[in-house]
Amino acid sequence: MPPTHVARRGRLRQLLRERELDAALVSNLVNVRYLTGFIGTNAALLVLADGPEPDPAVFCTDGRYDTQAGDQVPELERVIARGSDVALATRAARDGCRLLGYESHQVTVDGVAALSAAAGAVTLVSVRQAVERLRLTKDAEEIELLRRACAIADRALADLVAAGGIRPGRTEREVGRDLDNRMLDLGAHAVSFETIVATGPNSAIPHHRPDDRELAPGDFVKLDFGAQYGGYHSDMTRTLVLGEPAGWQREVYDLVAAAQRAGREALAVGADVVEVDRAARDVIERAGYGAQFSHGLGHGVGLEIHEAPTLSAQSAGTLAELTPVTVEPGVYLAGRGGVRIEDTLVVRADGPELLTLTGKDLVSL
Amino acid sequence: MPPTHVARRGRLRQLLRERELDAALVSNLVNVRYLTGFIGTNAALLVLADGPEPDPAVFCTDGRYDTQAGDQVPELERVIARGSDVALATRAARDGCRLLGYESHQVTVDGVAALSAAAGAVTLVSVRQAVERLRLTKDAEEIELLRRACAIADRALADLVAAGGIRPGRTEREVGRDLDNRMLDLGAHAVSFETIVATGPNSAIPHHRPDDRELAPGDFVKLDFGAQYGGYHSDMTRTLVLGEPAGWQREVYDLVAAAQRAGREALAVGADVVEVDRAARDVIERAGYGAQFSHGLGHGVGLEIHEAPTLSAQSAGTLAELTPVTVEPGVYLAGRGGVRIEDTLVVRADGPELLTLTGKDLVSL
Repeated sequence: MPPTHVARRGRLRQLLRERELDAALVSNLVNVRYLTGFIGTNAALLVLADGPEPDPAVFCTDGRYDTQAGDQVPELERVIARGSDVALATRAARDGCRLLGYESHQVTVDGVAALSAAAGAVTLVSVRQAVERLRLTKDAEEIELLRRACAIADRALADLVAAGGIRPGRTEREVGRDLDNRMLDLGAHAVSFETIVATGPNSAIPHHRPDDRELAPGDFVKLDFGAQYGGYHSDMTRTLVLGEPAGWQREVYDLVAAAQRAGREALAVGADVVEVDRAARDVIERAGYGAQFSHGLGHGVGLEIHEAPTLSAQSAGTLAELTPVTVEPGVYLAGRGGVRIEDTLVVRADGPELLTLTGKDLVSL
Repeated sequence: MPPTHVARRGRLRQLLRERELDAALVSNLVNVRYLTGFIGTNAALLVLADGPEPDPAVFCTDGRYDTQAGDQVPELERVIARGSDVALATRAARDGCRLLGYESHQVTVDGVAALSAAAGAVTLVSVRQAVERLRLTKDAEEIELLRRACAIADRALADLVAAGGIRPGRTEREVGRDLDNRMLDLGAHAVSFETIVATGPNSAIPHHRPDDRELAPGDFVKLDFGAQYGGYHSDMTRTLVLGEPAGWQREVYDLVAAAQRAGREALAVGADVVEVDRAARDVIERAGYGAQFSHGLGHGVGLEIHEAPTLSAQSAGTLAELTPVTVEPGVYLAGRGGVRIEDTLVVRADGPELLTLTGKDLVSL
């Protein structure tokens, strides 16, 4: 029984007791994985506030995962059913639960109607984002997994560059697949997301999908990619130039690098997420490119590639210790090209820990 | 302007007029893609029942996708906002909409609260699964994309076998990556899902993730995989044996093959989905392995790897013409091994069209 998962469920049980709820029905699969270690496409977890020690929780999945659940979640009582959340709502009612927390940010309007029907006299109460809030602060095991994921991405990019893999005549798709294969060869369990290779004018598209465009001399080459390791996602963007950078390219690059540095330096325990975004955005706005930085500064990262907190002007909250986040300003000049520079870092009391270690000086290949 | 998308939106507008709704707010990204061709991680679409011809619809995405949306959805008015669905609910209210359809199977409990707040006096009405129902029946363009996706998967497996890629000593992960790379080399835009390579005792786990187990003589090798082409997903499972099959292996294989044939033969326009599942399941139950066939018979496939209809004992409905579905019975003997055989087919009036053409005789390598 991995003590990590028992401890995590313990924090949720504590929260349920504080709110005087009898139980929580966790149906977000990422949250189920966080609380149990189970990896699959159908599962739910009923966590009881009180009850028989050491760990009164009931796990549900369907028949395809019966064997796997026995291996991954041996310590919990197991229910096999197709509709996992509905089955556990029924179970909560049968066990005399009165107030049942559910994930209102995750359960659909139709879904909650089915839960209500199954739960009978039980009252459903939103515990929106409760597990996500537990997930904000990472434990040492999680940070080590992130560190390994980031190290794989660093190494894959270094190897790709050393092998001459970024050169005129190759297509964006070829470069992307080469990078993906290197991450998998280095032990990544998967890539974090569809790798972005955006070259020349395509680099002005923040989330461009690699296509058959061939790299050409003078191109910006923007690579946004990451490795998954043990479920944790690394996230890094670097922008290079093929050949000698033009004046405008150096100018945009230096600007984004300065903004990124300002963003990193603003990361501190207790810092307001709006102010962190502001620190980087000010640099870009002062240079007159504010409208060309069309997205937020960064996001939390962990079991999901995008998770809380969000670093942007529209967000709210402050940074907690041991929270991994990305810092990724960009400037995009439509039709010409764009630059984004992104790191994954961990907020710490003595200053942020940089997990993506690839250099950020402008590289010309 | 691709006439396909105008025609699809026209079918939705017709449905809105039948239900006397003023508009529909489409927030499921797959449905947005189906109705517009847009591919991205944030978008929503407001389809108006009446209004200025030829196509009164408003598209919303955020700043990252502004350029891309201009390319992919040039014919529609474009709103740029972070919260696409909320922005379009506000817009619907401003335009005097009274009854607004929304996707209650997709919008969360918290999400509908935000929509209600934005929509003011507008009444939200569920149009659950409305676009999914339009998507059930595929047009010729969609079936051609599926055919190409299936052909890529067929060819990748044939090449893998011909190259000796399935052999003792290789790990499941290596075989899976080899197969994935072959699909991508053959023009797949992505794989349909994480390829399943389940060997020896692992083949008894229906949804096993490839690990470092080395293939060994006598193993069942179960491969469940697919290619994405133009957004459409192929889905195929084949089970092979390394070396001469043992008696029990041949017996299980022949049983699953017979059940799969019965399932395919039950596909007909108007057939009840429960009866299609029953046709295959009967074969397995009569042989005494009913409990070892622990999942439904199949599912629809298209822009999503799993979509309506579901072929299972718990489903309801009948098959429509031009609906692609999988037929994939399996028998899993815990600790020993399992067999699944799966095709993708299109329901047609003159009998199902087989899209996955790889043979189904037991192959021993």
